[in-house]
Amino acid sequence: MSKPDNINIPRGFLFSTVEAAIKKPGRKDLALIFSEKDAAMAGMFTKNKVKAAPVLLDMRLVKSGKGRAIVVNSGNANACTGKQGMSDALEIAELTASGLKIKTNSVFVCSTGVIGNPMPMERIRPKLAELASNIGKSSINDVAAAMMTTDTFPKIVSRRIRIAGKAVTIAGICKGAGMIRPDMATMLCFLMTDACIDKSFLGSALKEAVKNSFNRITVDGDMSTNDTVLIMANAMAGNEEIKKDTRAFKVFCAALSALCYELARMIIQDGEGATKLVEIEVRNAATDKDAEKAAFTAANSPLVKTAIYGNDANWGRIMAAVGYSGANIKEETTDIFINGLKVAARGLSTGKDKEANDRLKAKEVSIVIDLNLGRGKAKVLTCDLTEDYIKINAEYRT
Amino acid sequence: MSKPDNINIPRGFLFSTVEAAIKKPGRKDLALIFSEKDAAMAGMFTKNKVKAAPVLLDMRLVKSGKGRAIVVNSGNANACTGKQGMSDALEIAELTASGLKIKTNSVFVCSTGVIGNPMPMERIRPKLAELASNIGKSSINDVAAAMMTTDTFPKIVSRRIRIAGKAVTIAGICKGAGMIRPDMATMLCFLMTDACIDKSFLGSALKEAVKNSFNRITVDGDMSTNDTVLIMANAMAGNEEIKKDTRAFKVFCAALSALCYELARMIIQDGEGATKLVEIEVRNAATDKDAEKAAFTAANSPLVKTAIYGNDANWGRIMAAVGYSGANIKEETTDIFINGLKVAARGLSTGKDKEANDRLKAKEVSIVIDLNLGRGKAKVLTCDLTEDYIKINAEYRT
Repeated sequence: MSKPDNINIPRGFLFSTVEAAIKKPGRKDLALIFSEKDAAMAGMFTKNKVKAAPVLLDMRLVKSGKGRAIVVNSGNANACTGKQGMSDALEIAELTASGLKIKTNSVFVCSTGVIGNPMPMERIRPKLAELASNIGKSSINDVAAAMMTTDTFPKIVSRRIRIAGKAVTIAGICKGAGMIRPDMATMLCFLMTDACIDKSFLGSALKEAVKNSFNRITVDGDMSTNDTVLIMANAMAGNEEIKKDTRAFKVFCAALSALCYELARMIIQDGEGATKLVEIEVRNAATDKDAEKAAFTAANSPLVKTAIYGNDANWGRIMAAVGYSGANIKEETTDIFINGLKVAARGLSTGKDKEANDRLKAKEVSIVIDLNLGRGKAKVLTCDLTEDYIKINAEYRT
Repeated sequence: MSKPDNINIPRGFLFSTVEAAIKKPGRKDLALIFSEKDAAMAGMFTKNKVKAAPVLLDMRLVKSGKGRAIVVNSGNANACTGKQGMSDALEIAELTASGLKIKTNSVFVCSTGVIGNPMPMERIRPKLAELASNIGKSSINDVAAAMMTTDTFPKIVSRRIRIAGKAVTIAGICKGAGMIRPDMATMLCFLMTDACIDKSFLGSALKEAVKNSFNRITVDGDMSTNDTVLIMANAMAGNEEIKKDTRAFKVFCAALSALCYELARMIIQDGEGATKLVEIEVRNAATDKDAEKAAFTAANSPLVKTAIYGNDANWGRIMAAVGYSGANIKEETTDIFINGLKVAARGLSTGKDKEANDRLKAKEVSIVIDLNLGRGKAKVLTCDLTEDYIKINAEYRT
């Protein structure tokens, strides 16, 4: 039971992890987050039409706006598993609830891993009592580690804020790596806070935070069947209930957004095979929508991503991507900057490619595309595309 | 001057190639196709908003519906080169026309290679007279080789048909490799025929042929700034002019479509780093549009493409891609077949993944996705995604 030095845990949240050998033995792969008191809950889910069984379950549960626990497993996504998958997710909730002596419909279930295989319930089932009885014996770090798939490090962030004189803590963990793109919630992300806040305001705060973080990142343009963000707020900080359109609400939203942004950034840093964190900013587009289209098209272009990997300031590929993005653009008004260096001015080379190649050797790359057409803007985080992405994904199930 | 054994050249077409050391010395990189008589011409071009100078030039020229020559270079795309780029393209047309003693506006210009660098006119300019005077000294094979960039083999196809008792020949060459996706004409492709056909019917025939070939392939989802397909028909076969809605027109269209499909298939076979040719067929979608969306989304999914590379029958990734494609789909009605083997039935595993892994080891992979919802269908050709794609594109300009 270890806890990273700089992570604060909101009051009343306890953790547990066990090994169920879901994909293979040798690591904790089943984890539990438990709130000592009933928590307000909100969630966001994948927009993929193919949704995993636990996603369908949680979408139903979250309508009540409250909950006590989240069970999560890695190694199997419980997606494309039909009626059996749903009955397995329900059984996991039931057995966990019975171990914790709470109501079944207060237990949320999340899964991540391989799609299309039945859940190995014969190995999960006997471990659920132990998972419940071990509550408090694991750290938040253990939970973050248990839900990893191809992630190379656990992703944990916390923030302390003051709400009308009371100390309030927010903590979050997530797993990412591949199959990440916007227009969805995100990968698995669990947010916990001891703030007292009404469930509907909690939902608005979450929506805003996700919009500016998990919906602004892309690794490979693929959208998962399992993406889920859940937030639990158990009111144990003792603050006066946060109401909408108050200063307290603003402070809470800002902290939640910043925390989600930090988690999103970690997901990109840990993108499958990634060697560089890349921020693509589009400025002065005709509209924000246009800026988004241009930024995401450049961020998802395999040719742009491989050039960045190869330290090649091939801005022509960026122009080509922006050109087919569907955004309103004019070649002759477009400027492109790579780590602060102007490589294209009004659509033409500035002759600084060699210098720009050197700047690309940095671990963090900023690409600014100034369309000089209006006031629309957007920022997207992505990573480079490397041989290791191919290796990881060619061998994922072996 | 060599010619592949099985390639027939339409009457009246002559070829020439020279070395202009455009990217680097050591290979022929400037080529000329010349028709002894005025030819009817039609063309299709990239829909990218960022268009190379020669594309803008050819789009203007093709309105006349006739031409005599095509000059093509590899090593530099003459894209994102502004006014200078256009004046360079025009100068290439002028010098070629003067060498051939034909009108400047009967010379089409095409370029492929790096985007954003000015054309090295100091090396191209002095070679254009030699290019014109050498006409007839090179083969169609030499031209196809001169326009290659990352292609590993020249792509040449020909067909012989009979039109009302006369032998008519169609030949085509193209270059492909990366930056290939539909919703555009294609890469560079030059089609030549000695058929006598009115220019407007020639345009319709070309449109139909491109729709079913070059617009049905995808390598990396990137769309180029230079894509061009041009067809020249010089009437030297002596056939009675082909009119629309005749049997002759049907025969001509069928041959042209088949020839373009063969070229498109070669592009995919030679996709950057590709080890496998993959056909993705969607059947029984609600509409043809839905079938297309689902097929292209699966074909462009990096996770699907890496799984195929790794001989991993990970049909869950196919389901996920189809799920976010925007097509109307139902998980519980979807069947998936890999090289004839049903791996998913009504959205669920058939337990045949291991057997399917073995079938994936073939060089040609067929994936059939049956949505069981309607009568819509679409077929798309693509390739797998490998470490070599990354290598080729990370090091393209070095």
